[in-house]
Amino acid sequence: MTDDDYEAELARLQTALVDAQIWSQAEGKKVCIVFEGRDSAGKDGVIKRITEHLSVRQTRVMALPKPSDREKTQWWFQRYAAHLPAAGEWAIFNRSWYNRAGVEKVMGFSTPHEQEIFLRDVASFESMLADSDIVLIKFWLDISKDEQKERLDDRRSDPLKRLKVSPLDAVAQEKWDAYSAARDEMLRRSHHATGHWTCVKTDKKKKARLNTIRHVLHAIGCPDYTVSVETPDPEVVFSYDAVIEGKQALFK
Amino acid sequence: MTDDDYEAELARLQTALVDAQIWSQAEGKKVCIVFEGRDSAGKDGVIKRITEHLSVRQTRVMALPKPSDREKTQWWFQRYAAHLPAAGEWAIFNRSWYNRAGVEKVMGFSTPHEQEIFLRDVASFESMLADSDIVLIKFWLDISKDEQKERLDDRRSDPLKRLKVSPLDAVAQEKWDAYSAARDEMLRRSHHATGHWTCVKTDKKKKARLNTIRHVLHAIGCPDYTVSVETPDPEVVFSYDAVIEGKQALFK
Amino acid sequence: MTDDDYEAELARLQTALVDAQIWSQAEGKKVCIVFEGRDSAGKDGVIKRITEHLSVRQTRVMALPKPSDREKTQWWFQRYAAHLPAAGEWAIFNRSWYNRAGVEKVMGFSTPHEQEIFLRDVASFESMLADSDIVLIKFWLDISKDEQKERLDDRRSDPLKRLKVSPLDAVAQEKWDAYSAARDEMLRRSHHATGHWTCVKTDKKKKARLNTIRHVLHAIGCPDYTVSVETPDPEVVFSYDAVIEGKQALFK
Amino acid sequence: MTDDDYEAELARLQTALVDAQIWSQAEGKKVCIVFEGRDSAGKDGVIKRITEHLSVRQTRVMALPKPSDREKTQWWFQRYAAHLPAAGEWAIFNRSWYNRAGVEKVMGFSTPHEQEIFLRDVASFESMLADSDIVLIKFWLDISKDEQKERLDDRRSDPLKRLKVSPLDAVAQEKWDAYSAARDEMLRRSHHATGHWTCVKTDKKKKARLNTIRHVLHAIGCPDYTVSVETPDPEVVFSYDAVIEGKQALFK
Repeated sequence: MTDDDYEAELARLQTALVDAQIWSQAEGKKVCIVFEGRDSAGKDGVIKRITEHLSVRQTRVMALPKPSDREKTQWWFQRYAAHLPAAGEWAIFNRSWYNRAGVEKVMGFSTPHEQEIFLRDVASFESMLADSDIVLIKFWLDISKDEQKERLDDRRSDPLKRLKVSPLDAVAQEKWDAYSAARDEMLRRSHHATGHWTCVKTDKKKKARLNTIRHVLHAIGCPDYTVSVETPDPEVVFSYDAVIEGKQALFK
Repeated sequence: MTDDDYEAELARLQTALVDAQIWSQAEGKKVCIVFEGRDSAGKDGVIKRITEHLSVRQTRVMALPKPSDREKTQWWFQRYAAHLPAAGEWAIFNRSWYNRAGVEKVMGFSTPHEQEIFLRDVASFESMLADSDIVLIKFWLDISKDEQKERLDDRRSDPLKRLKVSPLDAVAQEKWDAYSAARDEMLRRSHHATGHWTCVKTDKKKKARLNTIRHVLHAIGCPDYTVSVETPDPEVVFSYDAVIEGKQALFK
Repeated sequence: MTDDDYEAELARLQTALVDAQIWSQAEGKKVCIVFEGRDSAGKDGVIKRITEHLSVRQTRVMALPKPSDREKTQWWFQRYAAHLPAAGEWAIFNRSWYNRAGVEKVMGFSTPHEQEIFLRDVASFESMLADSDIVLIKFWLDISKDEQKERLDDRRSDPLKRLKVSPLDAVAQEKWDAYSAARDEMLRRSHHATGHWTCVKTDKKKKARLNTIRHVLHAIGCPDYTVSVETPDPEVVFSYDAVIEGKQALFK
Repeated sequence: MTDDDYEAELARLQTALVDAQIWSQAEGKKVCIVFEGRDSAGKDGVIKRITEHLSVRQTRVMALPKPSDREKTQWWFQRYAAHLPAAGEWAIFNRSWYNRAGVEKVMGFSTPHEQEIFLRDVASFESMLADSDIVLIKFWLDISKDEQKERLDDRRSDPLKRLKVSPLDAVAQEKWDAYSAARDEMLRRSHHATGHWTCVKTDKKKKARLNTIRHVLHAIGCPDYTVSVETPDPEVVFSYDAVIEGKQALFK
């Protein structure tokens, strides 16, 4: 795909996102999109493309800072619940309540008991959101070990990306297998009827972004897009069901 | 029971509440007490006695005003979740998320679908609180129709109680049966392993208050009360289990 | 004054508070009452009497716990501003933003620079509240050294008051003069046109409470109290103006 | 300036923004940037360029939705105060508390009394933020009537910009003079020692963006930028002082 083709297709799909948000405002729909994935898997980038032409007043992107000492002792979901969407709003989480099953598990930032509790409860939490007519879309952005290495290396040498470099990067590759194990358990245990995981292969950024947006558009389901919205490429975007069924595999 | 006996026993039990809070602060325990019941069943009164000697900084009593227009469109539990206790705190709800199954149902302030969703979800919500090590104590204060009539009549003629008089009082007696039906369904469907309902007969205020505090003390379970805490009188305070088993009955 | 006289007069004044709140709800008035004073000066007690018959849904008492690590770095007034009253609400602060000029100064919990900034800014902050049609009433409850000693001693021996005992009590007497100096500077610099300080002599609890309530009632100014509200006794409740003019003196 | 030159210079300045944020994190600095200006003056665009490479966790962009019914009755600044930065954070307001003096005045969304109160109080509010060590940077993005017309026309015909089209656009040109008058009064009365207004001529978008970022960088004042940060072009970015002194003029 050339850059021009990508830009043209992106603009086409962003037009459909605009349609979807106008429609969701009119209908009072609530949309909640969760982006999870390893460091450098492309969360920031795809969120930027999704929100580029959306209403700044109806769209919120949440990348919560680390909890305060008092928040650490509260109900785990409390801090996130405060940011759930009201009628007509889209709330996008750049990392989310799933921190507990990912980085916290691998790095030991919480206890195994707390992590277990999270995995036991998360489907209940999300089912309630669904019951509250929140359209919940959960993405796992899946990157390969080599591609991650390249992106992390790039960051270190790019002065524009210095804020993306964190002490945790150092261990992303080193603890690759621990992260894989955490991911597998997390996806397996939190993939449920009202909270499906959608996996996205993100080694090819542009394809990943376009197909992720296609999935969002289908999930929201505005009846009249001004452009046609193709089904996402099933090699790039697929339900975690496909992994369970052995039709797709996540990077090891 | 004479007034003096009541005051002496109340002070004794309040001493134990003080012990319990000192202990729960030291241990970082979280306590959440929910008071539900018809108008005039005694919620304000018992809360006043419970909190009388507690720490004003570690104890919060929530009697949330009606939701704003924006809050009305959010996840039902969101507004309440913001007030859940952090380590060492006691949060007391004077009416709570159960509004949806009580007054809202009887008065038609929400849709039957919303009420159904609430009853379907509330056990999940509360189980998560339990999983988060919140000690959740739920009281249904049960008053008889005659006693309610008397109390509501008293309010109308007592200038000190004018703020307790509301347009809803008028229908409390009129819609007595509808409220009973709502209560029965609510208790039946939201009495669960980690969120037991404790019923309290409140026609006799003093007995009700003392026994309610006794139940709180047993539920919190501080190991060393400076006074002995008797088991609550089973004719006054009983688990909803006893109603299910036909050993106790709520007022019709 | 006998106990019976006190109770009768208290009830009479509480009736007027009920009138005032009904009126302020109807008019959408906002009321904010600040209680400051040394340990054991009677803040909890008078707040309890004021709120006893008020609407639990329209009245909020704030006794904020210590700030979280993140809150500590924010704008000093931010944490308090979140609790200011909306239309029809009464917000009562049991200690308030003035902590910075009192306990924090004496105990060194913040820097002299931060304390200076507070004293410089507080009149501006409160003037804005006044401009926003918030009725702001600020009380300094003034207790003598001997009476404080007695009350703190009582607390230590009363198991019901164990939660009121704090490590800071020990220094309340010891640093009496430092607290006096902090008080004098605080009152002098934060007594301004739209944020008058009202001083209350509280060694005699009952007189203090009754007269404090009288002052609240006059300050709110409901046009039709069902009872007559006398002017507070000028020996018990007086503007800080009287101190400036040398007509009254605070305890040394 | 060619597109390539623009992109290169933008990247250079964004590198300096990254430096500035790394430094402000390390130092615990708080930064608050306010963007005001007529519809289509370029607020969204410049914010996008500023935040592009900043930390998503330390940077918050606030474009608050309209207040809820309850919020409408609160202290005007309360809703905004909740989002002020903590240590190390940058808070960027896409429209701000100045709504009261702009759109609300022109459209009659609040009373002249409320608008007057705002103009009287805003300098006090901002001085307190300065006292709290918040670096406050206020931009007025100034666009010409013709350029606005063109941009608003473009929006209407561009499906990607449909969410930017609002019923208020229709009156932006029609009430141009009323908006000019509101702007003039607002700037004149809220330009003060600790809350300078910086005006930006935005008809030429690229020049405006680059120079706005240059101003931000100088205002934050990180000691060691990896690139040299030129003084903004005084024909594009200038203090409101220059308008007062007649050296610059805003669009009529």
